[in-house]
Amino acid sequence: MTNRDDCLARDRADTLAPLRELFTLNEAEVYLDGNSLGPVSSRVGERVREVIEEQWATGLVRNWGEWWDWPTRIGDRVARLVGAHADEVVVADTLTIAIAKLMGAALDQRPDRHVVLTDAANFHSDLYIIEEMAARSRRPITVKTIDRNALAEHLNEEVALVEFTHVDYRTGEMLDLAGITQQVHEAGALMLWDFAHSTGAVPLDVEGADVDFAAGCGYKYLNGGPGSPAFMYVRSKWQGVVRNPLPGWLGHARPFDFEMTYEAANGVRAFVTSSPSIVGMAALDGALDVFDRTSMAELRQKSLALTDLFIELVESRLPGVFDIVTPREHERRGSQVALRHHEAYGIVQAMIARGVIGDFRAPDIARFGFAPLYLRYVDVFDAVDRLGEVMESHAYEDPTYRVRNAVT
Amino acid sequence: MTNRDDCLARDRADTLAPLRELFTLNEAEVYLDGNSLGPVSSRVGERVREVIEEQWATGLVRNWGEWWDWPTRIGDRVARLVGAHADEVVVADTLTIAIAKLMGAALDQRPDRHVVLTDAANFHSDLYIIEEMAARSRRPITVKTIDRNALAEHLNEEVALVEFTHVDYRTGEMLDLAGITQQVHEAGALMLWDFAHSTGAVPLDVEGADVDFAAGCGYKYLNGGPGSPAFMYVRSKWQGVVRNPLPGWLGHARPFDFEMTYEAANGVRAFVTSSPSIVGMAALDGALDVFDRTSMAELRQKSLALTDLFIELVESRLPGVFDIVTPREHERRGSQVALRHHEAYGIVQAMIARGVIGDFRAPDIARFGFAPLYLRYVDVFDAVDRLGEVMESHAYEDPTYRVRNAVT
Repeated sequence: MTNRDDCLARDRADTLAPLRELFTLNEAEVYLDGNSLGPVSSRVGERVREVIEEQWATGLVRNWGEWWDWPTRIGDRVARLVGAHADEVVVADTLTIAIAKLMGAALDQRPDRHVVLTDAANFHSDLYIIEEMAARSRRPITVKTIDRNALAEHLNEEVALVEFTHVDYRTGEMLDLAGITQQVHEAGALMLWDFAHSTGAVPLDVEGADVDFAAGCGYKYLNGGPGSPAFMYVRSKWQGVVRNPLPGWLGHARPFDFEMTYEAANGVRAFVTSSPSIVGMAALDGALDVFDRTSMAELRQKSLALTDLFIELVESRLPGVFDIVTPREHERRGSQVALRHHEAYGIVQAMIARGVIGDFRAPDIARFGFAPLYLRYVDVFDAVDRLGEVMESHAYEDPTYRVRNAVT
Repeated sequence: MTNRDDCLARDRADTLAPLRELFTLNEAEVYLDGNSLGPVSSRVGERVREVIEEQWATGLVRNWGEWWDWPTRIGDRVARLVGAHADEVVVADTLTIAIAKLMGAALDQRPDRHVVLTDAANFHSDLYIIEEMAARSRRPITVKTIDRNALAEHLNEEVALVEFTHVDYRTGEMLDLAGITQQVHEAGALMLWDFAHSTGAVPLDVEGADVDFAAGCGYKYLNGGPGSPAFMYVRSKWQGVVRNPLPGWLGHARPFDFEMTYEAANGVRAFVTSSPSIVGMAALDGALDVFDRTSMAELRQKSLALTDLFIELVESRLPGVFDIVTPREHERRGSQVALRHHEAYGIVQAMIARGVIGDFRAPDIARFGFAPLYLRYVDVFDAVDRLGEVMESHAYEDPTYRVRNAVT
């Protein structure tokens, strides 16, 4: 069994270790909830301060000459992390609004088909927006909420669009991006991926996988801060073809001509509606600087080493206690590990009380995110050590654990 | 004619004058573009810093316990400025998305009617979203883009909804909030107001006027910063009745139960979709502090005095040069003055070169916003003085004025 000294040795050898210094972290805690809200890195406050004090305060409205391009400029920075070309990603809106836009755009391209398939285990907000967009669409659309493993049974000539979340927010299972996209395309349908738990966590190759549309958020592994804007990926072949179903003047070809009729701007810019928060985008812009100092391949290697270690330690220290629902196969694992236990809620609370921050996902999942940018091997060791204490002491039975914590 | 000393005397007597010190302004400039982007006030940077350094950096995901309520908490602060009750306003999204949500919600309430009326002179983004939402709605909806002065001719039993902007972004004309809303109601239709150029600029009494729905933005007279989030007003009688057509988990009754089916939260909260930018909202929250030190009635009094003075000085110094398109009647004027001139573009550029920041609105409007929180009477005098110089010297003919400035 790996001991604490082994972990400290691995940290000393870790080429990513210096990046931890760029983050503000409480040294008395182990933060395993970066898959919900990533921590602050050093450039964030600085970038936000620059925008407020050096741009807004001095140039005032004249700064819009620069800010105007931020949705696509910052989009290009995100594009590099998901394997997209520049000009295929735009930053704006919230994730659920982004899903709405891309769903509406995609459905237009399959006018003779009337079924949307989504995953019964999807994040609930995706299910709500898909259901409502379908119910309100001009032509009747049927949403089928399926077992994603039975996709083949549901794919037929009626299916217009499939929307799946690439890494399951509960179990941490990662789906086969290229394989599923190809399977969907072979049935003549289009594919929309939700990358909420993928971006900045696992390497993505949207070009290689021939993905049509994708959306993600800035506040998880990208560390862009609470409510950091979402992004939308629209493959270049669809640009100029699909329409933003929620159009606005910031996506118009000539916004300052104040024309009464909408004419989409070139490219992915057309998916911007109206003025997104520049202050919010500044935080994301600052947060992305950390990613310039590494690569998704390097991050992935460490991420898998961290989750492998966590699984190994949980199994050896607490054999048979948990159902480890996250897949063991690397190619099916995101950057989190989920433990199923009927006392999961109390376990998470007792861990938090001991300085290990994970989160609970109803009904019975204790979820731990492993962000390789700032976590150490010794953090994994200490987390399992606290978990062992909690299980052995039955601390999870503490009746004060009442208020449910956390946000996806 | 009012001279510069008269203006200085009025500034000395102005009870609002001390508020100017709360803003960062370039003393060599006169900023008459706060109707596009308001300036920074002192609490903004502080509030944003608090959120980043004292909340996000230290409590991390645990702060969501507090942030969760921000859309409604900050909404309540905006509610006080528009004459709404607490729990009738929520802050989220961008203005055009807000219009989309409220339009969809309203149309559901008039299922037997199929016409939406809007103003041909409306801000173009409103026209785009209304057109597209109509084109994509389940039942056929016809949008009629009318002369707002001919509303009576178009109101009939086919009309489901009327959407007007309360203060015209180009001319500064303010419409009759209560009168039009009543007229629309008498025809059995619902009323949705765009308050982009009204909120924080003119007193609003949405309760007294029986307004159904309204939306506005945070970046103009509220001074919440570039892309500051929008707000949505849903009159209490419609809450629990109307549905958010773009629902998401942040508006669910039990967001952490991760239910597959959407069930709206109580109240206006249901109009939040997914995580809005907390950093962006913090800037708006800080900006609203200034409004706690005055009242909309007091602001309105000074606003009218400033625009009266501007009109008086333009007419006396430059008689017959401009078509002053902003109404002279106080009850029909917002907080800006628009001058029509075929050389308006060059005039605005030449004014900017002389430190007076206004903006141009195609094809022929020079637009000057007067924000009573930070503008002085002497600023008005100096602005007209520069305008006189520009007109007398023909500086507006400078061929270097090529790149169009500014954002609504």
